Amino acid sequence: MDRKKVLIIGGVACGAKTAARLARLAPHFDITVLERGEHLSFAGCGFPYFVGDVVKEYKDLVCTPLGIIRDANFFRTVKNVTVHTGCLATKIDREKKCVTASDSATGEERAFPYDDLVLATGASPIRPPIPGNDLNGVFTLWTMPDALAMKSALSSGNIKSAVVIGAGLIGMEVVEALADRGVKVSVVDFLPTPLPALVGADFGLRAMKAVKAKGVDFYGGEKVTEIIGEGGVVSQVKTDKRTLPADMVLLAVGIRPNTSMAREAGLELAPNGTIVVDDHMRTSDPSIYAGGDCVVSKHIITGKQVWQPMGSTANREGRVIADNIAGYPTTFAGVLGTGILKLFDLTIGKTGLNEAQAKEAGFDPVSIVVEEQDRPHFMPGMGDLTIRLVADRTSRRLLGAQLMGTGVVDKRLDSLVSAISAGMTVDLLADGDYAYAPPFATALDPNTHAANALKNKMDGLVKTYQASELQERMLASDPPLLLDVRTPAELDMQGRLPYEFVNIPLGKLRERLGELPKDREIVTFCKISVRGWDAIAALRSAGFENVALLEGGVMAWPYELVK
Amino acid sequence: MDRKKVLIIGGVACGAKTAARLARLAPHFDITVLERGEHLSFAGCGFPYFVGDVVKEYKDLVCTPLGIIRDANFFRTVKNVTVHTGCLATKIDREKKCVTASDSATGEERAFPYDDLVLATGASPIRPPIPGNDLNGVFTLWTMPDALAMKSALSSGNIKSAVVIGAGLIGMEVVEALADRGVKVSVVDFLPTPLPALVGADFGLRAMKAVKAKGVDFYGGEKVTEIIGEGGVVSQVKTDKRTLPADMVLLAVGIRPNTSMAREAGLELAPNGTIVVDDHMRTSDPSIYAGGDCVVSKHIITGKQVWQPMGSTANREGRVIADNIAGYPTTFAGVLGTGILKLFDLTIGKTGLNEAQAKEAGFDPVSIVVEEQDRPHFMPGMGDLTIRLVADRTSRRLLGAQLMGTGVVDKRLDSLVSAISAGMTVDLLADGDYAYAPPFATALDPNTHAANALKNKMDGLVKTYQASELQERMLASDPPLLLDVRTPAELDMQGRLPYEFVNIPLGKLRERLGELPKDREIVTFCKISVRGWDAIAALRSAGFENVALLEGGVMAWPYELVK
Repeated sequence: MDRKKVLIIGGVACGAKTAARLARLAPHFDITVLERGEHLSFAGCGFPYFVGDVVKEYKDLVCTPLGIIRDANFFRTVKNVTVHTGCLATKIDREKKCVTASDSATGEERAFPYDDLVLATGASPIRPPIPGNDLNGVFTLWTMPDALAMKSALSSGNIKSAVVIGAGLIGMEVVEALADRGVKVSVVDFLPTPLPALVGADFGLRAMKAVKAKGVDFYGGEKVTEIIGEGGVVSQVKTDKRTLPADMVLLAVGIRPNTSMAREAGLELAPNGTIVVDDHMRTSDPSIYAGGDCVVSKHIITGKQVWQPMGSTANREGRVIADNIAGYPTTFAGVLGTGILKLFDLTIGKTGLNEAQAKEAGFDPVSIVVEEQDRPHFMPGMGDLTIRLVADRTSRRLLGAQLMGTGVVDKRLDSLVSAISAGMTVDLLADGDYAYAPPFATALDPNTHAANALKNKMDGLVKTYQASELQERMLASDPPLLLDVRTPAELDMQGRLPYEFVNIPLGKLRERLGELPKDREIVTFCKISVRGWDAIAALRSAGFENVALLEGGVMAWPYELVK
Repeated sequence: MDRKKVLIIGGVACGAKTAARLARLAPHFDITVLERGEHLSFAGCGFPYFVGDVVKEYKDLVCTPLGIIRDANFFRTVKNVTVHTGCLATKIDREKKCVTASDSATGEERAFPYDDLVLATGASPIRPPIPGNDLNGVFTLWTMPDALAMKSALSSGNIKSAVVIGAGLIGMEVVEALADRGVKVSVVDFLPTPLPALVGADFGLRAMKAVKAKGVDFYGGEKVTEIIGEGGVVSQVKTDKRTLPADMVLLAVGIRPNTSMAREAGLELAPNGTIVVDDHMRTSDPSIYAGGDCVVSKHIITGKQVWQPMGSTANREGRVIADNIAGYPTTFAGVLGTGILKLFDLTIGKTGLNEAQAKEAGFDPVSIVVEEQDRPHFMPGMGDLTIRLVADRTSRRLLGAQLMGTGVVDKRLDSLVSAISAGMTVDLLADGDYAYAPPFATALDPNTHAANALKNKMDGLVKTYQASELQERMLASDPPLLLDVRTPAELDMQGRLPYEFVNIPLGKLRERLGELPKDREIVTFCKISVRGWDAIAALRSAGFENVALLEGGVMAWPYELVK
């Protein structure tokens, strides 16, 4: 039987998955993994929860559900896979089909021949060239030693204040972790709002307000100029606008693919330095596969190259690599740019294209923002959701979505991942047979509502403004009349838009229509703009034609409200 | 402007939705609703939670999220819709386009002319002809008076025991409600396992065990022969096998569509008595639309007629009716047979076709059962899921799914609703870009795992048995050797299969392979059969060819386990 030699460089997500899958499909193969670190197959996405002490023991991140540590012995006895930890691969000889690696303890070099090679070399965090970035107490959070060091510092009890530089996914996860441990946290990002890769500025503003409400300081649009220390230990962070106290600093400004070895071996790379692979995860050398953070992927909708360095992507790609090496020629479906984040009481997520990306890809995008409850108001545990849906006006195909709220966001997000992957239209989503019982959803699921609202808009049944569009209109020379149909008590509780407006509660609107001008555009809204829709009907029935709706009402209004 | 007269018979789910949507789309129409009861637009699906006191006030079921009761005055002032409650429509004159209705208080008859008529007459619970079914304390749970009467009886404090007749969705929801209120509950159904319309016998058996663990007695395969009373009040329920104490009885054996008026008017009905409608929800009379529990729907996959009397379906259909009457000709997408139930700590749901239905519809179905965790084991709140996926072997299209578990079932179910509605293949589901972060999912979502396992099976990478298939094999003359690769401690904790087996923990398997025969089929498993898969690889690497896996391991084993 063919005892093919398969060499895998990297033993965390993609590498470990490739090895495990291959060991099942081709038990006779000779599978070897080289891992430069000491830990294998660890759950790196769990680091913020380890730092935040939600996960108590580091072992929990490297063991099976049964508590068995996934070390070299485990891979040997259970999977029949040989693993060398502390073993840094340095060079690929494609002619000889051989990789050179050095033992990080002894420095000893060793050659590993292969029939098939898998590059799962991952990525590394960027350490921006800020003076003081090498002080004690300045961390990145990428490897197990990073996580252990950060947790150990926190457990000392000496960390009273921390600055997180970079308001992306990892940065914001750590913000929550630190705040939950009682640390005074400041976030600095050169962009004005957090999570720009995940959501638009409006959702970002609301996320910013939410973290501020938890006592976190957010400094958007600022640049860190220096990290200041005392006796070699960090004490302050200086930006172009202020100086912040900092017993701890997290650098979370992004990552770079680890592809210097692939570059030196002459493999084809994408402009951002990631390795180019085909649908079978094969590099430009047919004996070399690559997957995980070090490769570029294909976008499911656009077909274009996109870098999505995520644990889930790495695991999916590892399966495809193993399948192909084992002679079961599956292909990788591609990525949708799905991401999700728990941020205190909020869940924030996205999938597919936003409007700018959709336009760039040649679509004619139209989007809607809706505000919904995730279950009937009479059921306990109800939360709210804001959903932005993007569809193509011509084909009516769903292109993307962003969601946030205190409600069950992840469910609606994954349902949209299925819908968008499969090419569903907004019409089919609007009329989907989703599971309804009061503990789980409203009779028409929030996604369904969002799709219906988008249909209404696409088909011209109602004119709507998103918050940013209305803001722009209010600053123009002919601002519309704002008609707030909430009750006065709601205005006090929920706040008012920062413009002149008329307040007529919906129940009184039909009898007070005479108070409103017919020669001026009227924009109606309420808490979530469901009553706003009824108000439009009332206006239309009395001959008002120039009427519009504020999408999502005051709940989705990301700017300041007047209380 | 065209002031079309639209008459809607029924003011609960479909009728109320039709009126509300139509009032928005066509504010100039003259919209009238006739409702035979006193309550409008109530959340009937919330009744079990009202009875169980999760919902305290009946008003919560008939008010808007803002606390405003949806009564005739609300419909008038807010929606400009005229509603007559206590008004029973009795006859349709299609020639004259006129409906006769009688006031339930005065008996007075009145004629309501229409341009377009909407039948949203709903359904009524079946009252099986059991002697004693009219005793005090014998309930159905369908209308607001039903719910009020049942709650009032419970609040008296005199209900110590109850018998629920019928183990369908409503019956089992009430089982939980009553048990939560401290009532000793017995369930009787003529079928052996609960929830037959929702899940197969294996899931049903597990649901039965779960309710028994909560102190509920379940008597499957029994027929109620008599309801016995004392002084006109129920006291016992007699079945063909036993007599049960009962201070309260719920009849939950099914419902019948309310279509006698439609029948008398000569509208086309389906064999089960429901009204036949086209994709625009139009009956055989082009001026009459119908929707909700009284109509038959089209199955999205098979295209065949199927009755799905659910609140969600009714709401969807109401929108389509309103759209078409308003001149916005949308169509109803159809139903998938989606259903969901909270049952104590379990969630149980399904969508699409089961294997028998798929076969009947001309597919070549193949199915898998997998057992998964809904998030990483290191995260708090982890729950388990069992997923049965059904796909077509030829086209690889997903056809259906059943799910149950203590984990987040509803999310995976709705994601599958999207997938199946859109015609997704098992391959695309297996490689979906679902949202991953530790609070929400495993790196590869349980649905993804299920799809991968189904691919493995469809593509012949591994032979598997479902529990019922293995049970059959064990009773045959040449039973396979069972190889349990769990640790001895797990066997004690989780229980053993009720057959002879060999126990070799996975970590010891490779060194102890010599103990196993090569001339007999070996079926491996563990807690969830992930280690079972590794065991198969270990066996194959040593030349064992006749090996198979028990799907879902002991966790998905629905029959008795030996402790």
